[in-house]
Amino acid sequence: MALKAKVLYDFHAENPGEISIAESELVSVFTEEELDGWLEGENSRGEVGLFPASYVDIIRDHISASNNGFSSPKTITQPPARTSSSDSQSQRGFKVGSGGGSSFNTSQGSDDDWDDDWDDSSPAAYEPQGFGSTPPMYPVATSLPTRRSSQQQQQAKGSATVGRNLNRFSTFVKSGGEAFLLGEASAFVKDGDKIVVVMGNHGPQWQEDPYPFTCTIDDPTKQTKFKGMKSYMSYGLTPTHTNIQVNRRYKHFDWLYARLVERFPVISVPHLPEKQATGRFEEDFISKRRKGLIWWMNHMTSHPVLAHCDVFQHFLTCGADEKAWKMGKRRAERDDLVGANFFLTISTPTVPLDLQEVENNIEGFKAFAKKMDENIVSMNTTITEFSRKQMTGFKKEYQKVGQSFRLLGQAFELDQQAFSASLNKALAYTGEAYEAIGEYFAEQPRQDLEPISDLLDLYRGHLANYPDIIHVQKGALTKVKDCPKQEGELNERCNIISCATLAEIQHFHRTRVRDFRSQMQHHLCQQISFFQKITAKLEEALHKYDDDQCVKASGP
Amino acid sequence: MALKAKVLYDFHAENPGEISIAESELVSVFTEEELDGWLEGENSRGEVGLFPASYVDIIRDHISASNNGFSSPKTITQPPARTSSSDSQSQRGFKVGSGGGSSFNTSQGSDDDWDDDWDDSSPAAYEPQGFGSTPPMYPVATSLPTRRSSQQQQQAKGSATVGRNLNRFSTFVKSGGEAFLLGEASAFVKDGDKIVVVMGNHGPQWQEDPYPFTCTIDDPTKQTKFKGMKSYMSYGLTPTHTNIQVNRRYKHFDWLYARLVERFPVISVPHLPEKQATGRFEEDFISKRRKGLIWWMNHMTSHPVLAHCDVFQHFLTCGADEKAWKMGKRRAERDDLVGANFFLTISTPTVPLDLQEVENNIEGFKAFAKKMDENIVSMNTTITEFSRKQMTGFKKEYQKVGQSFRLLGQAFELDQQAFSASLNKALAYTGEAYEAIGEYFAEQPRQDLEPISDLLDLYRGHLANYPDIIHVQKGALTKVKDCPKQEGELNERCNIISCATLAEIQHFHRTRVRDFRSQMQHHLCQQISFFQKITAKLEEALHKYDDDQCVKASGP
Repeated sequence: MALKAKVLYDFHAENPGEISIAESELVSVFTEEELDGWLEGENSRGEVGLFPASYVDIIRDHISASNNGFSSPKTITQPPARTSSSDSQSQRGFKVGSGGGSSFNTSQGSDDDWDDDWDDSSPAAYEPQGFGSTPPMYPVATSLPTRRSSQQQQQAKGSATVGRNLNRFSTFVKSGGEAFLLGEASAFVKDGDKIVVVMGNHGPQWQEDPYPFTCTIDDPTKQTKFKGMKSYMSYGLTPTHTNIQVNRRYKHFDWLYARLVERFPVISVPHLPEKQATGRFEEDFISKRRKGLIWWMNHMTSHPVLAHCDVFQHFLTCGADEKAWKMGKRRAERDDLVGANFFLTISTPTVPLDLQEVENNIEGFKAFAKKMDENIVSMNTTITEFSRKQMTGFKKEYQKVGQSFRLLGQAFELDQQAFSASLNKALAYTGEAYEAIGEYFAEQPRQDLEPISDLLDLYRGHLANYPDIIHVQKGALTKVKDCPKQEGELNERCNIISCATLAEIQHFHRTRVRDFRSQMQHHLCQQISFFQKITAKLEEALHKYDDDQCVKASGP
Repeated sequence: MALKAKVLYDFHAENPGEISIAESELVSVFTEEELDGWLEGENSRGEVGLFPASYVDIIRDHISASNNGFSSPKTITQPPARTSSSDSQSQRGFKVGSGGGSSFNTSQGSDDDWDDDWDDSSPAAYEPQGFGSTPPMYPVATSLPTRRSSQQQQQAKGSATVGRNLNRFSTFVKSGGEAFLLGEASAFVKDGDKIVVVMGNHGPQWQEDPYPFTCTIDDPTKQTKFKGMKSYMSYGLTPTHTNIQVNRRYKHFDWLYARLVERFPVISVPHLPEKQATGRFEEDFISKRRKGLIWWMNHMTSHPVLAHCDVFQHFLTCGADEKAWKMGKRRAERDDLVGANFFLTISTPTVPLDLQEVENNIEGFKAFAKKMDENIVSMNTTITEFSRKQMTGFKKEYQKVGQSFRLLGQAFELDQQAFSASLNKALAYTGEAYEAIGEYFAEQPRQDLEPISDLLDLYRGHLANYPDIIHVQKGALTKVKDCPKQEGELNERCNIISCATLAEIQHFHRTRVRDFRSQMQHHLCQQISFFQKITAKLEEALHKYDDDQCVKASGP
């Protein structure tokens, strides 16, 4: 018996092999196994083909069939089954095609929705709000082999003479990379929006930030509104270039993040620290989130492009003036230079890159990223285990030894003679010293292992961004190579994409070297002072044994 | 059905309630449960009463009945079922009664038996050699309640007007304590043998050693004889008061030990390091035994009485002259001042001790010793476990972290850019540093935990000696208290025993405080340099990250 599925949103077939399906329609699904996010099945008109898996709800029983997600707007606005690795992709919300089309009306509803009490904004905050059946972000599918074969048959559109990518859901297409390559992008780029890639010693790189700044994040304070009925955490941000503190909530960060990922298709926007539904006023969570936001902020301010983009500057500098804030917010949401148009803002070095070299570089980076990701995973496991051992086993061992010394001192106290007293005290002190050392071991991981773990998490986030970024570049490169008559303009546009991608990779490496160097220094400094603290404690204990310097024991 | 037992040695009833049994006789045993080493049963003449459990072999089946230990001399000479706590007792070989009676002809056979190849002398070496059915050391039984009631009926012997202890196997009797108390001891004591107890601030104590010395023990060398067919380890001993090296084998130590325990009933002779049958030329064992011998030697030379006794001096100073050695050996073995006569050598402070105070002191020490012993046991467990953890778990954790850093450095090497190289090297170095630290952890216990463990073992040995020592004193005290007409001489002799016992306890405490203080200092010094070594290693690693001082990490 074939599986049935209820269609959640209209989907119009655009390519051979796809079939159109309509909201509320019942379709047959041949197999539940998705192929890069696509399902194969038959619609009610008897057409057989592919449709996005996330557009339908497979009917498992009568209960789920009669209750499959239509009634609740939340179900509509939340993409189904986000996995951690696809997180960045589904959050990115790339626009399909060029221009300021409104298929993705992010947060353009009433500004009043900013006044609700959520702090951990749900993805809904930057996803469609007023809707009939706006589709979710469906999975990013790399082009299906069965469909790619028909690529050459495809009619070219626009000014380009090369064909469109058949897979409308590939990052290359959604990011606007394809549209740009095909010359479909067009927008007015003012000087302030120009992004310059220069040729450095190690290849293309973002022009250095002429006005570098940093931004501190204070301990968040708990704010209330509606006479104390609603509360939220507010972070005081003070950028060094204005030195004026502004207050932002996590949902503002979240909103900003959504703007940035749609604005910069080939830039790795650092991931925000994890959302958490419960316990968001608990000290540990607050401290962890703040640390995460500081890391995030450091990555933002040290990125020559991100640091100076309008929306980030608005976020950092707009004060308590509600009106000014809303104006900046609307401006950002209506930004014309997103997706394909982003590439219009890039100016490249005069000499175009060698295609083969670019390809080698990209391949090298892919291998690098894979290896680094693997190492991060295993290092995180090791570090977590090491932390756990220090907090439990190491602590316990030192404390047991401490207790042993203390108890021996107590046993010795049964001998009341004066010449025994100082030894007993010294043993008691030694016992305490070892117990303290046990505590030191338990407290230490927070100082020197957790920061490494945070760093690794941040870089895992970056690495998760890169497949998409590389996909855009690869898409462009493939298109150029496949094109029988290589056009000058096509090459030029491909060169722009390549330059941006390589500049971003270069930036990644520089940041990585900087961050890991400084974090390792931090870690080692912490470890050194940790062991010095232990040594000092032991020296104190040693002094209790009268002699004030190391003596040779009488025993062997 | 009553149990049957075969009698291994003649036993002659000396007290009411006991029955005589003859070698090879079959007796009935009413219950297998021993009462302080005695069994109740019926002999072949129909007499019912008590006999020593170790004098018979209970017949369990036909095989054991036909093979119960007669054929092998080894079975005869080795006391049955030695437990660790009774070890010192059974090794002591106290003489029953006074005088130089030859019931215990220790090592008086041909001197040729020194030429065999054993190094780990078996207990047989200082136990009876030529014999028919010499009984083993039977369990030390405190007087049985049922038999004590008849104590008053007992006919007094010798010069004393108080009765003899009914239990011929009590340490009090065997050590010669009873015989001395009853005035039966008599021997010529020359000035050099005089042992002086003086009254110190903390009660009676051995007169301080006017000629203190120490003695070093060199790494043993492997010697061979019979053209290399036999080999043994030889230790070079150099006492500071002669500064002439003598060579001794372990069996010489063992022989000396046997002399000392029979010579000094109320002195705690330190136990020798463990015997070991196999692997006695292995490095670990040799090193461990040497350390044990050094501890032993330190305790010997720092004991005012033991350090200067003839047999020890002979052992330390007699050179390679075979004849001189044998003469001294025979002299020691025929020493008249053993057992009861030992007490003749002691001169006490002029004012006799208050009996009640002595009793309180002894009771206090008993409580102390019990508590100390318990603590030693649990501390040894803790330390052993801590060592094991450092050698396995701690090492593994640090090495896993080290490996993680190293692998991350290797992953980073995939990025060939120059600005990355120094970080990669630093990471590799950090990895090595952590792996080295893991090794440090594994090696450390040998430096600072093993010596504590050795110390604890030595003191466990001392504590195991004290029940016997206290038993002698208690026996004397009880006899004096039980005596209806307290005689001056009886009191005086009891005072001698008390003074010697308390002086020995005082010595124990002083040595204990000295040893534990210096060992704790040694331990802490070792720990301090251990953590300093780690710190230095980490500092080296830190320097590899270019900056030569601690810097604040860029992250939080």
